[in-house]
Amino acid sequence: MRTIVIHATVLTVNQTNQVIYDGAIAFENGVLTHVGQMPDKLDTYDEVIDAKGRIVMPGLVNTHGHTAMSLLRGYADDLPLQEWLETKMWPLEAQFTEDHVRWGTSLSIIEMLKTGTTTFVDMYDHMDMVAELVTASGMRARLCRGVIGLCSAEEQTKKLEEASAFAAKWNETANGRIMTMMSPHGAYTCPPDYVERIVARAHELDLPVHIHMSETEWEVQQNVADYGARPVAHLEKLGVFNRPTLVAHAVHLTDEELDILARYDVKVSHNPISNLKLGSGIARVPDMMERGICVSLGTDSSASNNNLDLFEEMRMVALLHKGHRQNPVLVPASEALRMATIYGAEAIFMDEQIGSLEVGKQADFIMLNSHDVYFQPANDPISHVVYSASGRDVTDVYVQGVQLVKDGKCLTMEEETVIENANRMFELLEKK
Amino acid sequence: MRTIVIHATVLTVNQTNQVIYDGAIAFENGVLTHVGQMPDKLDTYDEVIDAKGRIVMPGLVNTHGHTAMSLLRGYADDLPLQEWLETKMWPLEAQFTEDHVRWGTSLSIIEMLKTGTTTFVDMYDHMDMVAELVTASGMRARLCRGVIGLCSAEEQTKKLEEASAFAAKWNETANGRIMTMMSPHGAYTCPPDYVERIVARAHELDLPVHIHMSETEWEVQQNVADYGARPVAHLEKLGVFNRPTLVAHAVHLTDEELDILARYDVKVSHNPISNLKLGSGIARVPDMMERGICVSLGTDSSASNNNLDLFEEMRMVALLHKGHRQNPVLVPASEALRMATIYGAEAIFMDEQIGSLEVGKQADFIMLNSHDVYFQPANDPISHVVYSASGRDVTDVYVQGVQLVKDGKCLTMEEETVIENANRMFELLEKK
Repeated sequence: MRTIVIHATVLTVNQTNQVIYDGAIAFENGVLTHVGQMPDKLDTYDEVIDAKGRIVMPGLVNTHGHTAMSLLRGYADDLPLQEWLETKMWPLEAQFTEDHVRWGTSLSIIEMLKTGTTTFVDMYDHMDMVAELVTASGMRARLCRGVIGLCSAEEQTKKLEEASAFAAKWNETANGRIMTMMSPHGAYTCPPDYVERIVARAHELDLPVHIHMSETEWEVQQNVADYGARPVAHLEKLGVFNRPTLVAHAVHLTDEELDILARYDVKVSHNPISNLKLGSGIARVPDMMERGICVSLGTDSSASNNNLDLFEEMRMVALLHKGHRQNPVLVPASEALRMATIYGAEAIFMDEQIGSLEVGKQADFIMLNSHDVYFQPANDPISHVVYSASGRDVTDVYVQGVQLVKDGKCLTMEEETVIENANRMFELLEKK
Repeated sequence: MRTIVIHATVLTVNQTNQVIYDGAIAFENGVLTHVGQMPDKLDTYDEVIDAKGRIVMPGLVNTHGHTAMSLLRGYADDLPLQEWLETKMWPLEAQFTEDHVRWGTSLSIIEMLKTGTTTFVDMYDHMDMVAELVTASGMRARLCRGVIGLCSAEEQTKKLEEASAFAAKWNETANGRIMTMMSPHGAYTCPPDYVERIVARAHELDLPVHIHMSETEWEVQQNVADYGARPVAHLEKLGVFNRPTLVAHAVHLTDEELDILARYDVKVSHNPISNLKLGSGIARVPDMMERGICVSLGTDSSASNNNLDLFEEMRMVALLHKGHRQNPVLVPASEALRMATIYGAEAIFMDEQIGSLEVGKQADFIMLNSHDVYFQPANDPISHVVYSASGRDVTDVYVQGVQLVKDGKCLTMEEETVIENANRMFELLEKK
């Protein structure tokens, strides 16, 4: 089956961020075979899709989240962080069963797909269920069982084995759409020797490490009090960065810490909206960019966002740092777009397969209705995508050449069933 | 004609921010006659609208903008402010004719209506055209001819007469949907005596004053250099605040300046996205709230935003200050909602007519599709509207009881014609 999409405004996000007007992309067996001008002949294609009035661009990559937590969207906002965690989130999450994860993650998958995200990172529990849903939905994901080590040695071992078994079992499954990682939840939730054991396992399995780091000032000071070092030096000493590593948040960093991250080529998942909503602070993204650190974008969970529309993170990263530093040339639209696509792919060590529209890469792409007023006058499409678009403008989504969203409807998930069950599971939680 | 909307989740934005589940609102002759539970009998109504699965809330109020500038959306981003103004915006705006305003403002009106804004402030030139478009579109607006006084005394007088004539002619027209103001553009663009003349005219016409103030640190320092005072003291001395006044931006303020604004009950139009994008800075909104200053929301123009979706400003104000101050309890969702509605109405001195859904007020309201995944689980609807919704979720818009948007389509403007002409007028501009 050879398919071609024609008459599109193509944002390639290749090396030069090339935009092709009235362009075409073609694919076969899930792989892009043409990205460029309209070919002279279309009769060699089995399917021809007219994308006039649409933008075609790479599917977005969401590099940090906890998808099951969509069940708690809007449940508790505007509270001090520790109160929010201790009295609201943790008591409810403690009640989560595999069924909660089933419906919370399903809700998230539908939302992500409909708003143009084709690949996501998930760090949570009951990950077999998540992997099964990814498989069924047709989406792409890099998954890890997030391990909290504040428990007995026995329990620690059990969790580590569970995380390893999951990672080994599911890596490179679902036709390569699922990849895995090993994930110590954070330096403040995993004792040093436990972090080392998890990292050793990541070495054995040859997998990257994903970890929360330096999200709040409190966390940094706690690390100094507990271990006599700020989180970056602490994790460096534990050997974490000797593995390919993706850190989430990275808000509170010194110059020296930024230099260490750059030296080890540690990837960052910048979660601007979650960091704002929880009052965590504003990450030093312009300084990361200056050092060549790979900055990607994550939503974190719907409980601290409260949605999974990565277009909003893309706009936020382009706006926030300009205003915070009072410098309007920081984080231009072209870089924000790359953070949501190719840098996202790089952050999860998959940039050879996804993140841009180039021949030989996977056919993971989305289409936006760019005829609406938000995109007029039809000026610079990259500017419009970053500063004016919404995930709601996404009409069609393909992963590996398979259509998952058509005219704004998710083809692979039962939307009504998911909404009904997500509400049912939320109701079942004992709230105080 | 008596109309009732039933089975809605009604966000009243009344004194207590009351939410009515499975509620109803009714109106007759453009005025709300019922806001509350479903009545027992529906047979006294001529029209019954079923709003099951929808949120009904007051239309949003956008308190600062320059609608014609939508023609320049995406034309020039990510530049230093002065370069952006001097080499991009001003040369193109200098070429603007009434026809540019016709199509730029039409584009903006469609965008605002479709994203749930029912009332807007416009400060620009060729305002007769804007008023005619407001009349034809069915929208509500508070309009002013923005006057820049960097010109000859003759020219100053001509502009002042033009602004006064416009304000006098159009105030309380279009069945009360158009109100006007007098507008010296700013302290840095109007010499002191000219500001005084404009304010004197506002006294004569009994109209409020709208002015840009303290948007950038540069502007503040310029004011100190030119007049030996920061903008607030300067404008106070010129008697501006003796009129009801709405200031736009108000980013760079000292404690003392905040106290002065509070004392005179000066209203603020907070434009968080424009202030970020242009690198102007982050306004001291929590300190304004603490002093009881009325903070409303504005988009500014599409050239510095780049859209007019006020849901994004509402979310931004709820997120930005939490992160900037590292305090997650600042600007709760309930207050962000009020800023976009009732405080907006108050900021333009129309809170007795609009801004909340209460019996006796104008029937200016919008409906959102709240069944979609972004609103699930169906928890706190105020949280969902602020933190998860998009203007794209708006399905229906009414002003004075007249439907202007139906199922996402604007009923009173020719969308295709406007898009075509907006592009044509943009192409006609001589760009360098």
